[in-house]
Amino acid sequence: MMKRIFLLSALVLTALLAPAQQALWEGAQVISPEIHANRTVTFRLHAPKAVKVQVAGDFLPEPGYADLVEREGVWEYTTPQPLEPELYSYNFVVDGLKINDPANVHQIRDVRSVTNVFLIDGGRADLYRVNDVPHGSVSKVWYDSPTAGMKRRMTVYTPAGYEDSGKRYPVFYLLHGMGGDENAWSELGRATQILDNLIAQGKAKPMIVVMTNGNISQEAAPGETSAGYVVPTFQLPQTMEGSFEMAFPDVVKYVENHYRTLKNKHGRAIAGLSMGGFHAMHISKQYPDLFDYVGLFSAAILPDRQVASAVYQDLETKLKVQFAKRPALYWIAIGRTDFLYQANCDYRKLLDEKGYPYEYYESGEGHIWKNWRIYLTEFVPKLF
Amino acid sequence: MMKRIFLLSALVLTALLAPAQQALWEGAQVISPEIHANRTVTFRLHAPKAVKVQVAGDFLPEPGYADLVEREGVWEYTTPQPLEPELYSYNFVVDGLKINDPANVHQIRDVRSVTNVFLIDGGRADLYRVNDVPHGSVSKVWYDSPTAGMKRRMTVYTPAGYEDSGKRYPVFYLLHGMGGDENAWSELGRATQILDNLIAQGKAKPMIVVMTNGNISQEAAPGETSAGYVVPTFQLPQTMEGSFEMAFPDVVKYVENHYRTLKNKHGRAIAGLSMGGFHAMHISKQYPDLFDYVGLFSAAILPDRQVASAVYQDLETKLKVQFAKRPALYWIAIGRTDFLYQANCDYRKLLDEKGYPYEYYESGEGHIWKNWRIYLTEFVPKLF
Repeated sequence: MMKRIFLLSALVLTALLAPAQQALWEGAQVISPEIHANRTVTFRLHAPKAVKVQVAGDFLPEPGYADLVEREGVWEYTTPQPLEPELYSYNFVVDGLKINDPANVHQIRDVRSVTNVFLIDGGRADLYRVNDVPHGSVSKVWYDSPTAGMKRRMTVYTPAGYEDSGKRYPVFYLLHGMGGDENAWSELGRATQILDNLIAQGKAKPMIVVMTNGNISQEAAPGETSAGYVVPTFQLPQTMEGSFEMAFPDVVKYVENHYRTLKNKHGRAIAGLSMGGFHAMHISKQYPDLFDYVGLFSAAILPDRQVASAVYQDLETKLKVQFAKRPALYWIAIGRTDFLYQANCDYRKLLDEKGYPYEYYESGEGHIWKNWRIYLTEFVPKLF
Repeated sequence: MMKRIFLLSALVLTALLAPAQQALWEGAQVISPEIHANRTVTFRLHAPKAVKVQVAGDFLPEPGYADLVEREGVWEYTTPQPLEPELYSYNFVVDGLKINDPANVHQIRDVRSVTNVFLIDGGRADLYRVNDVPHGSVSKVWYDSPTAGMKRRMTVYTPAGYEDSGKRYPVFYLLHGMGGDENAWSELGRATQILDNLIAQGKAKPMIVVMTNGNISQEAAPGETSAGYVVPTFQLPQTMEGSFEMAFPDVVKYVENHYRTLKNKHGRAIAGLSMGGFHAMHISKQYPDLFDYVGLFSAAILPDRQVASAVYQDLETKLKVQFAKRPALYWIAIGRTDFLYQANCDYRKLLDEKGYPYEYYESGEGHIWKNWRIYLTEFVPKLF
């Protein structure tokens, strides 16, 4: 009894898996991407039968593709120049078929696209990486929204030390764009890492960050509801028609009843990207006593919108009330090539004409996550 | 001022993205997988230039591959028979290159493989789907492990109602296998859905579930540490050499200091799969006063292991102490074709010879997630 010696190794484990399982486990053996010390990056794909292999990435100049070259079945491409520090996304295109890099398990979904990611360290991008600093907790929580008539899923970040401090914390409500969901800011947005790092560096106050789902017809992100593994889509019913804004106090109520929060205007901020900027703009003026800090990141400002909701009516009257209450910060950011640039200029002109104070941050490029991460790193240190 | 009408639609949004971004957004237009009413499933891939396309899946008979047939550039395969209710994994193989299905964003990583998933409803698999029931919260939390000398990440499930009840809850510690991490049970293991559903049906008591990282040299899953986007691996230093088991009381201490728990043996359970079953076996006998419920799922039982750790010494003496304290449940489960089947038989023989009571559950098939999900659904209703 108990005399047999079993040697268990990873090799034994994989070798003895059932064949059906084995078929799923055979993986690529190349290293990709390989980030060199000089910040150039090599991409590799083992595809002996392919005729043409390209990499599509947001680090490449327009049109955003580069050809890989084949040698003994392995296709390879090295960036000619070092890449600037940043979180980058890419895919391969094999004979016209867009695929993920099978050698890189690190992938992030953005609406209905799944892209591989890699990070070039340095500069601002060091705020996007996991560093050896105290980490906050990230929770997926279901809150009750009586206004929406459903339980809804959200992501809540509580800063390192929250569990033990006994203190009350300010709350930052952070909203996603069209097609996004409650996972967007904590994944491509790197909100968790940005908050951990800014707080550890003493550049931001410890705060709770609440990342909601801005699609009021959805309980939760695709795959997280009883609808099953649905295909994510941009076009949802009840998007930017007032329902999300009207139901927003349910979120605040849940958060303030379940977390140790500062329950006053000075302790609340709201910001969002694109559609979320539109939401933040309308929510903050609809409830002018709720938020002392407002951030519009590439906001989808849509004046004279032909939507019946009371939320969008009497814009100028509501802005007058909001600014009469002197928000601590009204912050607008946009990229110079953003298709919403002009709409944001027009909106700033309105604020200027009325003498409503705001801060403005203009970046290069357009309607992309790179900008939204930058805006988050700029906005958070100004809060509370 | 404010006279321009901006019509923002999803089309405008996508059309105006920068070209580099656009390259990442071009997606497959086919529907795949399509689950038909009769539970057959059709897989599709748009790949006009491919010569041979296969699907590799755990629903296919050995060797686990099936050929797709091409018509006008779209490759297609429909299962000849309805599939039994289950969570299935698959990939495509295009001219020898294993890829994910670009039309299906629902993917789960298992060690270093990323596979697409789909779910056939019905039977036990209804426990794996998100149903319209109250949902618990799932949190990624960093706990302090003085024994390991680091902060470590874990997944904590708190049942629906936890936030408001004011009650104390029992705690189930659920451990992963070799190469896995603190994400494994909540992703491929469907632990969140299984707990939500069993609790909603009244078949399991509301409980907290703590899913640790069993690789003591790791702070957290690949990509979640300051090491960056590393390639996951089976072979880690300090695996199954006693350190994780010795540091386990740090986990219990953190949980009991930060959650409303029943702080006694009757309120604690521990189970794990494969390496996690090995861990659960050794932890429960090393600390015989901690856990009243023990589950070994396809446990990597390795008698006479040539490892110096005190944890593995005096097996029979420690088992004698453990069973003298009459654990409420000692549960062993294994699949008939598991490569660890004989080791588990031998271990059961030892328990039988000593007269130590245990419950035994034998399933078909082998060392696969399908079995571990089944074992979880069988084990959880027996707890507390």
